[in-house]
Amino acid sequence: MDLNSDVGESFGPWPMGDDAAMLRHVTSANIACGFHAGDPSGIARTCRSAVDSGVAIGAHVGYRDLAGFGRRFVDCSDAELADDIVYQIGALQALARREGAAVRYVKPHGALYNAIVGHPGHAGAVVDAVASVDPSLALLALPGSVVLDLAERRGIRGVREAFADRGYLPDGRLVPRGDPGAVIVDAGIAAQRAVRLAEEGVIEAIDGSLIAVDAASVCLHGDTPGATAMASSVRAGLEHAGVELRSFA
Amino acid sequence: MDLNSDVGESFGPWPMGDDAAMLRHVTSANIACGFHAGDPSGIARTCRSAVDSGVAIGAHVGYRDLAGFGRRFVDCSDAELADDIVYQIGALQALARREGAAVRYVKPHGALYNAIVGHPGHAGAVVDAVASVDPSLALLALPGSVVLDLAERRGIRGVREAFADRGYLPDGRLVPRGDPGAVIVDAGIAAQRAVRLAEEGVIEAIDGSLIAVDAASVCLHGDTPGATAMASSVRAGLEHAGVELRSFA
Amino acid sequence: MDLNSDVGESFGPWPMGDDAAMLRHVTSANIACGFHAGDPSGIARTCRSAVDSGVAIGAHVGYRDLAGFGRRFVDCSDAELADDIVYQIGALQALARREGAAVRYVKPHGALYNAIVGHPGHAGAVVDAVASVDPSLALLALPGSVVLDLAERRGIRGVREAFADRGYLPDGRLVPRGDPGAVIVDAGIAAQRAVRLAEEGVIEAIDGSLIAVDAASVCLHGDTPGATAMASSVRAGLEHAGVELRSFA
Amino acid sequence: MDLNSDVGESFGPWPMGDDAAMLRHVTSANIACGFHAGDPSGIARTCRSAVDSGVAIGAHVGYRDLAGFGRRFVDCSDAELADDIVYQIGALQALARREGAAVRYVKPHGALYNAIVGHPGHAGAVVDAVASVDPSLALLALPGSVVLDLAERRGIRGVREAFADRGYLPDGRLVPRGDPGAVIVDAGIAAQRAVRLAEEGVIEAIDGSLIAVDAASVCLHGDTPGATAMASSVRAGLEHAGVELRSFA
Repeated sequence: MDLNSDVGESFGPWPMGDDAAMLRHVTSANIACGFHAGDPSGIARTCRSAVDSGVAIGAHVGYRDLAGFGRRFVDCSDAELADDIVYQIGALQALARREGAAVRYVKPHGALYNAIVGHPGHAGAVVDAVASVDPSLALLALPGSVVLDLAERRGIRGVREAFADRGYLPDGRLVPRGDPGAVIVDAGIAAQRAVRLAEEGVIEAIDGSLIAVDAASVCLHGDTPGATAMASSVRAGLEHAGVELRSFA
Repeated sequence: MDLNSDVGESFGPWPMGDDAAMLRHVTSANIACGFHAGDPSGIARTCRSAVDSGVAIGAHVGYRDLAGFGRRFVDCSDAELADDIVYQIGALQALARREGAAVRYVKPHGALYNAIVGHPGHAGAVVDAVASVDPSLALLALPGSVVLDLAERRGIRGVREAFADRGYLPDGRLVPRGDPGAVIVDAGIAAQRAVRLAEEGVIEAIDGSLIAVDAASVCLHGDTPGATAMASSVRAGLEHAGVELRSFA
Repeated sequence: MDLNSDVGESFGPWPMGDDAAMLRHVTSANIACGFHAGDPSGIARTCRSAVDSGVAIGAHVGYRDLAGFGRRFVDCSDAELADDIVYQIGALQALARREGAAVRYVKPHGALYNAIVGHPGHAGAVVDAVASVDPSLALLALPGSVVLDLAERRGIRGVREAFADRGYLPDGRLVPRGDPGAVIVDAGIAAQRAVRLAEEGVIEAIDGSLIAVDAASVCLHGDTPGATAMASSVRAGLEHAGVELRSFA
Repeated sequence: MDLNSDVGESFGPWPMGDDAAMLRHVTSANIACGFHAGDPSGIARTCRSAVDSGVAIGAHVGYRDLAGFGRRFVDCSDAELADDIVYQIGALQALARREGAAVRYVKPHGALYNAIVGHPGHAGAVVDAVASVDPSLALLALPGSVVLDLAERRGIRGVREAFADRGYLPDGRLVPRGDPGAVIVDAGIAAQRAVRLAEEGVIEAIDGSLIAVDAASVCLHGDTPGATAMASSVRAGLEHAGVELRSFA
């Protein structure tokens, strides 16, 4: 099982999260590439931390929307989006290479992550961009999303992820933020859910039913209070259960 | 002899210059990388044009100053500047690679170009960035500039350039813009100067004296009225004189 | 009848349109405010031109999307949008005031203009912003749009506009760009349509039917080839027909 | 005596400082205007907090340099700078007005603050901008700076500020950051220094000598650890000594 987290999301004078701490717990680092977050010097620092921690580097690509942190859908053309993503991946590749590392995968961020669950145009743009930069890059996304279908058809390896700290609806979707049960704050429960996912391939939905979740990676949020404790607990739980932790990349 | 020109300087809805026309005359294309000009889709288009014209691609890197077009000195730290430049080169590399091309050289733009004539910190940052991305990249700069000294010491190949359409002072510096004789508007005279530079290694200064100019490339401005006619004339003059035109890269 | 046009859409080194020429023909100037186009110095120049030409100044507000020129819908929250619009209007007010003028109206731009035809949240944000800055500002928008309904309810004066150089469908909507008949390029025909609109309140749709269009302003595009000639023709046609031209503001 | 602090320096998802807490201690709020920090919604929130706390609002204007937080000198033209400042002040005016408040003064930020101590062009641009927006605005700056001279000549009221938490050299300049004694971390000592400044007009320099400092405001930094405790201590010290605290504006 892989553990991934969003890092490198500082910008200029503004820090976000504790990257060095998170990188001691995860196996894959989704590093912001400058369009929704991340300035070159902050990205470079995070690449160094990832290398120091032996963590795989992924390009966390987003819409060009710094003020909105990439959390707002931007109705750009598919071609613009593909070009924007190639640009972002390339920028990270050069910064990672300087630290002796390589970009191993791509994970879309925020509103783009959500859009490509069902938006064929933007999903296709993501796949086109990945294929044109390096078809050996993996693509980390939500199980059942259109982007994973398109990736498979193009010969791009899709990697499915689950969330240890988010509630699930019986149909497999996440409980919307703001609704009861959307976020799991108890680190011990999150760890138990991660173990069950790894061992049995199931997650308990909010109505108590068990749902099959096919995931090779567990996403841990890095910018919330208690993020590091949560990551530490999930990692410890998985290790204690004998689950091997390593990057899918 | 090489002919280089700045291209890819459109941004979003705003065009600049006639890249396709200029690329029919030059042998090296300084393509903007997004910090002083150039959005990913425009950069991609220019990469395609350069490939179609068989022109070498260089990274035209600048200060992070879109509103000022990179023409304003920004007193960033050396480390910030190096990171910014690595980011820009990497972004262009990915877009060029998609078109089947590679970035062959780096040319600093505008205020950065001028700063690294004498600013050791920023000059060192440029050299560090080039060395860390790919030490086989050439660096195109002004003869006599600090950045070329530093490049040589680091084993980076420096390429010197001259200006066919600019007046020179007897000491080898350019006549400051705004002063009489700063700009040569007659395309025939510019062509003659380029030929003499290529054949004899000299340029006539504004006082009529001849100055030795060691240059492997001639820079042609692309964003001025008559730019294409100037480029066409200089190219034709050099070809007529039997000077072989090809990129230094 | 009022004639309005988008101006002030240059940014940094990139010009757009010929503002001074357009401002000799129109009576209302929709001046970009920096979010989709317009840097402070360019905005200031356009304010001076508007004052010199005796043209009313309006705030042409847009989504925060410089690379996309505000032509891409951005799914920001209503509150963010309202704050962004207040910011833009205020910035223009200060620049206009320096030239001895005042902002008289607000016209949403591009994707925002289109969104508020039917998006109650963003339409409400526009009205809230206008009401909070200065409830005496008029709001220039498309007849039948939600934003005009909301403006009326809040006591904000809505002003309807028509397009002399665009084709209309029989139901009163514009022929989508790219479809046959979407754009009228013959300046004489555009002038005739403007006169008929002013005198009879009707426009001929692409199927030859006459549709009632209640409009107090005619929008002329400034960034297309022949824009100035079109503006000149429409103005001359209206004047020749005895239609009084003055700003609604 | 007035107490001022920098607030409103969040941007998008990135918070900075605890504005609400600082605003309970100071009498003047230097609110960022979007060029070095501050997005419209964050600026609006800070305006509301300032109004709730009865604190005067000032425009904290800076170079257009978000990535560098306005801490890097940008060699823009004087005219560009003046236009940028008018734009920023106007944007804040509209957001403040919505909260029932008005902008009372202008304080340049970061590298601009430092530049206008001795750079006549940029200092003049600041004064021009203030004079053109509203000549009744005060200008908060460093004693002895060129900008205060120019302001006085133009009839703009200059207000001098001192620093309770910074060491002074015997010649009245601040001890450079990084040198021993540059920053005073003991809140009690800072309070004593503020009291002595208010009562006697003197500050003890690092060599123990007393220097005359003519200041009507004390600047408190808001973005450092312990900032709120420092502000609370200085305020309590001044109040205990019977110094009346109110804005100069």
